[in-house]
Amino acid sequence: MSAVVDYLLTLSCPDRPGIVAAVTGALAAASGDILEAQQFGDRETGRFFLRIAFQAPERDQAGWTQILATVTRRFELQWALRPRHACRRVLLLVSKFDHCLADLLYRWRIGELAMEPVGIVSNHPRETYPHLDFDGIPFHYLPVGVDGKAAQEARLWQLIESSGTELVVLARYMQILSDELAEKLQGRCINIHHSFLPGFKGARPYHQAHRRGVKLIGATAHFVTADLDEGPIIEQDIERITHLDTPEDMIRIGRDIERRVLARALRLYLDDRVLIDGHKTVVFT
Amino acid sequence: MSAVVDYLLTLSCPDRPGIVAAVTGALAAASGDILEAQQFGDRETGRFFLRIAFQAPERDQAGWTQILATVTRRFELQWALRPRHACRRVLLLVSKFDHCLADLLYRWRIGELAMEPVGIVSNHPRETYPHLDFDGIPFHYLPVGVDGKAAQEARLWQLIESSGTELVVLARYMQILSDELAEKLQGRCINIHHSFLPGFKGARPYHQAHRRGVKLIGATAHFVTADLDEGPIIEQDIERITHLDTPEDMIRIGRDIERRVLARALRLYLDDRVLIDGHKTVVFT
Amino acid sequence: MSAVVDYLLTLSCPDRPGIVAAVTGALAAASGDILEAQQFGDRETGRFFLRIAFQAPERDQAGWTQILATVTRRFELQWALRPRHACRRVLLLVSKFDHCLADLLYRWRIGELAMEPVGIVSNHPRETYPHLDFDGIPFHYLPVGVDGKAAQEARLWQLIESSGTELVVLARYMQILSDELAEKLQGRCINIHHSFLPGFKGARPYHQAHRRGVKLIGATAHFVTADLDEGPIIEQDIERITHLDTPEDMIRIGRDIERRVLARALRLYLDDRVLIDGHKTVVFT
Amino acid sequence: MSAVVDYLLTLSCPDRPGIVAAVTGALAAASGDILEAQQFGDRETGRFFLRIAFQAPERDQAGWTQILATVTRRFELQWALRPRHACRRVLLLVSKFDHCLADLLYRWRIGELAMEPVGIVSNHPRETYPHLDFDGIPFHYLPVGVDGKAAQEARLWQLIESSGTELVVLARYMQILSDELAEKLQGRCINIHHSFLPGFKGARPYHQAHRRGVKLIGATAHFVTADLDEGPIIEQDIERITHLDTPEDMIRIGRDIERRVLARALRLYLDDRVLIDGHKTVVFT
Repeated sequence: MSAVVDYLLTLSCPDRPGIVAAVTGALAAASGDILEAQQFGDRETGRFFLRIAFQAPERDQAGWTQILATVTRRFELQWALRPRHACRRVLLLVSKFDHCLADLLYRWRIGELAMEPVGIVSNHPRETYPHLDFDGIPFHYLPVGVDGKAAQEARLWQLIESSGTELVVLARYMQILSDELAEKLQGRCINIHHSFLPGFKGARPYHQAHRRGVKLIGATAHFVTADLDEGPIIEQDIERITHLDTPEDMIRIGRDIERRVLARALRLYLDDRVLIDGHKTVVFT
Repeated sequence: MSAVVDYLLTLSCPDRPGIVAAVTGALAAASGDILEAQQFGDRETGRFFLRIAFQAPERDQAGWTQILATVTRRFELQWALRPRHACRRVLLLVSKFDHCLADLLYRWRIGELAMEPVGIVSNHPRETYPHLDFDGIPFHYLPVGVDGKAAQEARLWQLIESSGTELVVLARYMQILSDELAEKLQGRCINIHHSFLPGFKGARPYHQAHRRGVKLIGATAHFVTADLDEGPIIEQDIERITHLDTPEDMIRIGRDIERRVLARALRLYLDDRVLIDGHKTVVFT
Repeated sequence: MSAVVDYLLTLSCPDRPGIVAAVTGALAAASGDILEAQQFGDRETGRFFLRIAFQAPERDQAGWTQILATVTRRFELQWALRPRHACRRVLLLVSKFDHCLADLLYRWRIGELAMEPVGIVSNHPRETYPHLDFDGIPFHYLPVGVDGKAAQEARLWQLIESSGTELVVLARYMQILSDELAEKLQGRCINIHHSFLPGFKGARPYHQAHRRGVKLIGATAHFVTADLDEGPIIEQDIERITHLDTPEDMIRIGRDIERRVLARALRLYLDDRVLIDGHKTVVFT
Repeated sequence: MSAVVDYLLTLSCPDRPGIVAAVTGALAAASGDILEAQQFGDRETGRFFLRIAFQAPERDQAGWTQILATVTRRFELQWALRPRHACRRVLLLVSKFDHCLADLLYRWRIGELAMEPVGIVSNHPRETYPHLDFDGIPFHYLPVGVDGKAAQEARLWQLIESSGTELVVLARYMQILSDELAEKLQGRCINIHHSFLPGFKGARPYHQAHRRGVKLIGATAHFVTADLDEGPIIEQDIERITHLDTPEDMIRIGRDIERRVLARALRLYLDDRVLIDGHKTVVFT
């Protein structure tokens, strides 16, 4: 008798009557017991999104493909299914500031982030992080050298492929990805970025925000697209500041927001709760 | 050909495999098109909760009872179903402070609260609220008079019955309901109450909180039960305060929190998003 | 013997050693008892800001001018002083949406806003607000008519002057002030404006924000300057939203944020807690 | 010629007219240039509190005592003064859960916390924290052994004295201090504690809060007093939760709140911004 396994199924398709009934029916027929289900029909885009956590006797992908074949054809489903215990393989990219990296590593260690870190990449050498215990995660020093950015990205891409990376996390990685790389990583590369009300373009945004006297500063975790810092938003948060806060204070407070927003976004992603819906996301919290 | 109507179905039952498939199947068989569905299985209590918004050809309650008969028996469903346009009949109770009442009336007027106010009850006379436009909603002055509280509650109960009240909102109503009345209104009476970290028992809680120097004050909207201020919580929020805030400032800030927390809780309830799960609530936001 | 009165003194000057000692010394010499004092030296702009609440025997402006004469010369002070009980004369401007106006009027009525409303101005007629009790505050219908915007602003300016208006509040007033009028009202005209992370330019910002899938929406209260929506920020706040929120939900949630941010900003201003520091504000909370 | 040094002066005294003028006058006479000043007169307790950051030519404590002698006598001042660069000596106490400790160490390392950690004490051995780099800070394993709690506290007290500890931080230290030790550490021992609205007494508070279905959970940083978890509150914060959050989720979210609330409280303390006012605190942010 086969073991019972926890599965996560996410799907999207054109919104039509009967999807939930058909999918849950197919799972029930396969002895699937639904633990959680969340759905969303986007009236603007006409797309339907579903996330189902369920228990069922163990099957391989081919088995599930067969079980979902009829409903997939009927509703033009795009679906992904994985056993919940199969952690995603994650590559962490960092530059000089390591507050996000340190935070993610700590959370991973105590079991808050169900991921398998397959590597840490930096454009700075290992000795930049003397106090961080990488705990056996391979470290890769990939500077943008004399052979230029394209060469560095080629090495990065090779690493992504050879390590079986499923998700790239830009944990304050201060290199802008080329459009080509951003394109190749679409939907599986998350960035963290400061945010303000109102927004500020250009260099030294904290200093700009300070000059304008904003009372709130924030951070946004988003998918990376070729359109810099404009990808689908996953999570945001803010903190209140006052006229007493210098740009340095704002940077310090910003660190706190950045690390918790990135950690939340990553946790949501790792639990298959983030689905892309055109320029935005559906986040099943 | 019958008109297509928006319906809201909420249900709970013992958690077992196949509920969602069976219910959505029954609705699909009745030409129901699911717009939203949210579910929750409480692992502690073993109860399952489901809210479905769907469109279907118009039917009366008997028609829906028939459609859901098989699945109801099979899964021991407790369900409620109503056309979305059928607003709930709400009785608003108030005492001297009218900030929650004024806020609810304003929100109702501009369409934020899909309810039908069937009456406003106060233990203070109409002239207590000279600047509030009740806009035709009947006002009832029900003081606790010489005939005592039981007599006043008897009049209140008569009013609840004669007006077809479905929900009672205690919008800063400073009379404690008797255990008997609380019992009769179980699951359909919402109260708003200040809250602190840590909690304070007894009189003048804002003054107690001030003496302790709390940095956050809050409010809780909850169902009324015989156990005073201990009913299932629907919604909570807080504001930050400092040592500069006097008890009077705290009361002022508290007013703001109270009115927005009560309005949110009421809005959630009116959209059938609040289901009672023992001592707690399931809130499908 | 003269009565003891509560005074508010605010001042700014070039930052130099000894200001606080000199000012508090001058007040002490005039039998002033300091209740609250807050100061801020802006290291960037080199300006110093001070707010002092104090009690002293009653004097007229000439008396205080004499008492502060030496210190004013010595430190190039720009100061303002008023008895705390002398409420500011406020003109409220509104268009079709009255959520901010209704809120301000309610708060004023229950004593939260220490102001004297000298008029309500709208580009819509009185019957737009059938449920609002203006409570004797003169209402002025100032449409932008066939004689054009300049003529309407001339009537508005006349009203500001004849009513002795000290502060103009744009409580969702959907007319853009001309540069000339904005200039004349500099430092005494407050606006409320929606805000997002990131910011969106152009029409229908809630729809833009929705398409981008933002997770936070906000509002900003700021001084009006000729540079539209770019004046010094007084107060901001946000609310969390999800993919379930339609643009209409965002507008509804925005109403809540707008009214509480505007009310907070106004309350701060009325208590002389907002000082302008170039493009930003010093807010002594 | 002596160097110019940044100083922090904090004081409290019975509230009387003229304190600020007298103190700032004394500092001005000593060539002190005030950078920041914050004050608060507590109308309930009649105490006055002042924090002044100023620059002045370097002097030793005896020098400052002489400069402040007259004003100290006249106003019965209790004051403390230190050069800003003289970091406080801090002893960190921890038990099994190291999320607060790891966070404080990280922040200290990147310069967010101006302290000198003189030791880390745990009732668990060093190998409990294999991934934490203590960076040369002495670690002390002080289990409650067969000789009992009094003996353990005696060793702890000896360590506090021999290390010149100025502040003790209970960074999730799960041993309750005896009344005697709490008394000896009054005003210089900070604890972090989960908090709820409403509060819950007794064991497994997250489980209690879950059963009640609270929608907010929080944490409180406070001074330790003999009255357990009832000392003056320094800082609090909360996070929103839903019915989907299990007690385990609440504990995870609680970790995040605990570490940021403790870090904020510690940072405020280290910058002399926290003054004790009976059962509450004055926090000059």
